[in-house]
Amino acid sequence: MSKQHFLSKDQFHLFWDESHKPVLTIADGDTVVMETSEVTNDFFTLNSTTEDIAKLDLNACYPLTGPIYVEGAQPGDTLAVEILDLKVGSWGWMSVLPGMGLLSDIFTEPALRVFDLSNGEYVPFREDIKVPFQPFLGTMGVCPKGAKDQTVMPPGTFGGNMDIRHLKKGATLYLPIEVEGALFSCGDGHAVQGDGEICVTAMECPLTVTLRFSLQKGKKIRSPQFFTPSPLTGPVDKEGYFATTGVNSDLFQAAHDATEDMVNHIAETYGLAPVDAYFLASLCVDLKICEIVDAGQYIVSAHLPLSVFEKK
Amino acid sequence: MSKQHFLSKDQFHLFWDESHKPVLTIADGDTVVMETSEVTNDFFTLNSTTEDIAKLDLNACYPLTGPIYVEGAQPGDTLAVEILDLKVGSWGWMSVLPGMGLLSDIFTEPALRVFDLSNGEYVPFREDIKVPFQPFLGTMGVCPKGAKDQTVMPPGTFGGNMDIRHLKKGATLYLPIEVEGALFSCGDGHAVQGDGEICVTAMECPLTVTLRFSLQKGKKIRSPQFFTPSPLTGPVDKEGYFATTGVNSDLFQAAHDATEDMVNHIAETYGLAPVDAYFLASLCVDLKICEIVDAGQYIVSAHLPLSVFEKK
Repeated sequence: MSKQHFLSKDQFHLFWDESHKPVLTIADGDTVVMETSEVTNDFFTLNSTTEDIAKLDLNACYPLTGPIYVEGAQPGDTLAVEILDLKVGSWGWMSVLPGMGLLSDIFTEPALRVFDLSNGEYVPFREDIKVPFQPFLGTMGVCPKGAKDQTVMPPGTFGGNMDIRHLKKGATLYLPIEVEGALFSCGDGHAVQGDGEICVTAMECPLTVTLRFSLQKGKKIRSPQFFTPSPLTGPVDKEGYFATTGVNSDLFQAAHDATEDMVNHIAETYGLAPVDAYFLASLCVDLKICEIVDAGQYIVSAHLPLSVFEKK
Repeated sequence: MSKQHFLSKDQFHLFWDESHKPVLTIADGDTVVMETSEVTNDFFTLNSTTEDIAKLDLNACYPLTGPIYVEGAQPGDTLAVEILDLKVGSWGWMSVLPGMGLLSDIFTEPALRVFDLSNGEYVPFREDIKVPFQPFLGTMGVCPKGAKDQTVMPPGTFGGNMDIRHLKKGATLYLPIEVEGALFSCGDGHAVQGDGEICVTAMECPLTVTLRFSLQKGKKIRSPQFFTPSPLTGPVDKEGYFATTGVNSDLFQAAHDATEDMVNHIAETYGLAPVDAYFLASLCVDLKICEIVDAGQYIVSAHLPLSVFEKK
């Protein structure tokens, strides 16, 4: 009979490391309720300001609750993680971290915004701009084989910091197990984010999650796979989208150009400061590869859901 | 008072060229019903087979109905094209053209599939696999400045062969005008396609379209932009999605790997030949940039809508 377990947010580690002792051992089919801190591990608070960014120690970020040892898990198996529930904490933040983000060439100055999320339903971006929650864990992964003080930020085929917004409630994530026991950990909660995580932060927030783990013995995959339920774009797919495009022989540059034009569009159309337009884009604009086959000129689009703006 | 005009599919050109004589002159606000041939200009028919691919002359492809001269259009203005209606022809085709397509390294042999589309609603891919139509023009553009026998295949900031599936009925496309009169042309009809156009062909078909043209004088954009109505993923956003991912420092490789794993998944799960799985992916799998900001390791996902498969 499967059991339910609990892990508090204090049971965390900061790096991927094969030598980490499991904080919990579970059986195939068990469920775990896990608290997770936001990605700065409570360094930022609802009272933080842009000045605090200079004091942020990136090596003290990415607390991951875990690791969880799954009995019977072996390298070459697949771990299925059902996302049964996600509860958003009472506050969140976004930032520009100089040198990071898709438009790091344009947004070079630090900036921090904090948000009261206690209404439990949406990000109150401005009085007339509301972005409904669609929470997910930015980071879920199994321990990479041979990991030793491996930083969390880059994801890998083991999962990790994937920032896939589709891993919402009702989704199931499949991860290729690399070490005995799988050693699953998670954190980096996001209340909502668009495809791309444009400015390098989503609506960063504490999350309490309920996950069910099961093993697919002998099922080999080379990268994470997942099921995600309909509707795809959740509560914002109501009023259509405005989209910009980038056309380039390099997909990254195409994404950059589409995003730059989108940020300018948002700023001009809705009277936002450019940095706030950049934040809003990171929260709800989706980057899509429209075509990747036409004689070396590729098109990336950036889709803005119009339902986040209140009608005048 | 605005007028409605008609252009038959015989009023076409094959290349972008500034010296092309307009086949129609319209006023700001006019509507044009346009017939378009499929992209081989009737070289392929419902009776064609894989052997015919060797005889295909790419320089005789991409017939574009037009060009249309819009009175008052000047370089630096924007042309708004409202997509009022799209009618799919009675048949369509897909192919592997060696050397082209996202998985051209894997699918090296030519292949052609023809489809009877006369049911008017969906692609009968297999008895138990139905992909609902969501038609759009693969190619809509204004004449690029200085164009002289310019091939249609690569798109550009003038639009052209963009293959953006979101330019469906109810959408409005905005194009930056480069030459006097705009010289708009279109063709390359698709009954349905996923984001990416994975195998380099969509469900290629004749389309009859109704477009309304209007000018935004002095409005400068650097690339095509558009509005597209909800729901985003139309009739297939019902039963959730299975998704694969590619994780790589190069977005193109990430897209390639996600697609390769998706094609393998489709072939194994639904008992399709690999090439047919590749075709199905091109029809309905969407490529998304999940994150483009995490320490140089990017994630592209390939989403397969499960509603195209009949439940057993």
